[in-house]
Amino acid sequence: MNNNSKIALAIHGGAGTILKSEMTAELEQEYRNGLENALRVGWEILLKNGSALDAVEATVVELENFPLFNAGRGSVFTHEGRNEMDACVMDGKTLDAGAVAFVKNVKNPIKLARLVMEKTEHILLAGNGANEFARQMQVEFETDDYFFTDFRYRQLLKAKEENVIQLDHSSNRKSQIANHKSLGTVGAVACDFSGSLAAATSTGGMTNKKFGRIGDTPIIGAGNYDDNQTCAVSCTGHGEYFMKTLAAYDVSALMKYKGLSLIEASRAVIDNLRKIGGEGGLIAVDANGNVALPFNSDGMYRGLVTTDGKSIVKIY
Amino acid sequence: MNNNSKIALAIHGGAGTILKSEMTAELEQEYRNGLENALRVGWEILLKNGSALDAVEATVVELENFPLFNAGRGSVFTHEGRNEMDACVMDGKTLDAGAVAFVKNVKNPIKLARLVMEKTEHILLAGNGANEFARQMQVEFETDDYFFTDFRYRQLLKAKEENVIQLDHSSNRKSQIANHKSLGTVGAVACDFSGSLAAATSTGGMTNKKFGRIGDTPIIGAGNYDDNQTCAVSCTGHGEYFMKTLAAYDVSALMKYKGLSLIEASRAVIDNLRKIGGEGGLIAVDANGNVALPFNSDGMYRGLVTTDGKSIVKIY
Repeated sequence: MNNNSKIALAIHGGAGTILKSEMTAELEQEYRNGLENALRVGWEILLKNGSALDAVEATVVELENFPLFNAGRGSVFTHEGRNEMDACVMDGKTLDAGAVAFVKNVKNPIKLARLVMEKTEHILLAGNGANEFARQMQVEFETDDYFFTDFRYRQLLKAKEENVIQLDHSSNRKSQIANHKSLGTVGAVACDFSGSLAAATSTGGMTNKKFGRIGDTPIIGAGNYDDNQTCAVSCTGHGEYFMKTLAAYDVSALMKYKGLSLIEASRAVIDNLRKIGGEGGLIAVDANGNVALPFNSDGMYRGLVTTDGKSIVKIY
Repeated sequence: MNNNSKIALAIHGGAGTILKSEMTAELEQEYRNGLENALRVGWEILLKNGSALDAVEATVVELENFPLFNAGRGSVFTHEGRNEMDACVMDGKTLDAGAVAFVKNVKNPIKLARLVMEKTEHILLAGNGANEFARQMQVEFETDDYFFTDFRYRQLLKAKEENVIQLDHSSNRKSQIANHKSLGTVGAVACDFSGSLAAATSTGGMTNKKFGRIGDTPIIGAGNYDDNQTCAVSCTGHGEYFMKTLAAYDVSALMKYKGLSLIEASRAVIDNLRKIGGEGGLIAVDANGNVALPFNSDGMYRGLVTTDGKSIVKIY
C-alpha cells in the first residue's frame, strides 16, 4: 500500500456515436453539468480522506439519478417496456466484489451491488432473487413513473418499429441523436489517500432487449475490475466484446504480467477491442493517481479531476 | 493454427471434499463409469475428425445426463426446491461464447448455451428470458420428476435444517459423503486435429441457494475460457473465488503475457486461488495436446484420454 498517495477520480457516462454536429448547445451543457456534479460529489469524499469505495459509490449514485445517462433513473426500456438495471462494485484492497443483474424499481442499483458485496457470500445476484434481496435490505425503491422518461420510451417504440435491439453503439445514428440518446453505461474509478482503489459501474442495458440478456457491466473482469496492486477499471461499450476479451481484467493482467504502465495497458486493451470489431471505451486509475480514459468510438462522456482539484469534462 | 495437432480431451465432474475413507467401492465404480463413458463419447468425435466444440458439447451432455454429478439431471435443489442450472461453452477459434444462467427444466443446458452462441448476438442469457429463448429454440425439456433425485432432495432438507447454503466445498463433510454428494460442476476441454480448442462447463449450482445467485460457471473468464492461441479451461470449486481471480482467463493470460507453459500457468492459478482461501480445481488443454488437471481440494472427479487413446480416470 502506498501511503499519502495522490487522490484521483475519473468517470464516464457511456461511449458510442456522439457527434458534435448533431448535439445542441443546451443538451451538451446538461451533460456537462451532470458529469461535473458527479465529479464534485466524489472528489469531496476523497478530499475528506474518505475511501475510494465510498467515493465511487456516491459518484455513480449521482450518475444514476441524472436522467440523461442510461443507468438508474434514465435507464432504457426492455422489449416488455420495463427498466431492468445492472451494477457492479469492486474493492481493490480485498478483491471483494458485488453485482446485480436486471433488478427492477431499485432507485440505485450501485448501492444494492455494494450490499451484495458486504452482506452476502456471493458476488452476483440476478433477477427476482436480486429484487428479493433488495427488499430484505430495505433499499430505496421507486415506482415505474420515476424511471419513465419520455425520450427513452420513444426509443423503445422506434426500436420495436425497426425490430432491432439497440445496443449502446446502435448504428442508427440519426434517430439516436434526434432522440437525445445518451449512450451505454456510467462508471467511476478512484484512488484514495491510502492508495486504495475502487471501481463502480451501472447500466440500464439495451433498448428493446429480450431473453434476460446480461451484458458486461455486472461481470467482474469484463465491465469492471479493481486490484490495488494494479488498477481500477470501468468499461462502456458493446458489452459482448468486453466479455469475451475480459477487457477490465486485461488492463490489470497487462500491468501485472507484462509490466505495462496504466496508460499503455489501457490503450492496448482498447486497440485489441477494435481489432475484433468491438466499440467502446474505459476509464482507469492506478495507485499512483495516474488516470487513463481511452476509447475507440466517436465519443465518450467522461471526466476527471486533476491533482490540483480542477474538473475536466469531455464528450468527443 | 496447428495442423495435424495431437487430439486431446479432459473432463471433470467437480472438486471438493472427496475422501476415499468415506466412499464405497460400488459408488466409486459408478463415478468411474460415468467419467469413462463421457470420455469415450467425446474421444470418438475427435478421432473421426470432429470439432473440439462438438466433442466438448457431447461430453458434457453425457455428464449432464449422469445423475451423480451436479449438473443437468443430477442438479442440486435451490431453497425453493427447484433445479436451476447454468452452463457455458466457448470456441477458441473465434472467441465466440454462449452461456445460460438459472434455466429450469432444460434437459441439457450445455446445448442451450451453444444455441445462445450460434443463434444470438449475446453471450449470457439468464432466468425466465433464457427459458423463453429455450422454448423458441425448441430444445428438449424434462419434467421436475426427471430432475428429482432422492439424495439431492435429502441434501436440501438437511441444508435447510442446518440453515446453510451448501457450496461445492461445504465443510459439512460427513453429511455430504453420507448422502453421496457429488460436488460442484462438470466440464470438458478438447483439442481437435486442426489444433482448435473448445471448453464447456455446466452446473446445478449450490444446494439451498437463494436470491438468484450466479456463480462462475456461466461467466466467461471465471469458470470457462478458451482461446486457440493459448488454452481451453474449465473450472470447478467455490465459484466466487474463481470469479474474482478470473481463474479461467488467468491461465490464458499467464501463457500469453508471461510465456508460462500450460502446466505452469494452470498450477499458478490454482496456487493463487489457495492463497486467497479458494478451493477447487481446473482442467486445461493447449493446441499441442498438452493437458493439465491441477486442484487444491481433497479430490476432483477427473479424466483424460492419453495420446494413444487410453482413458485415465481419477478421483483423489
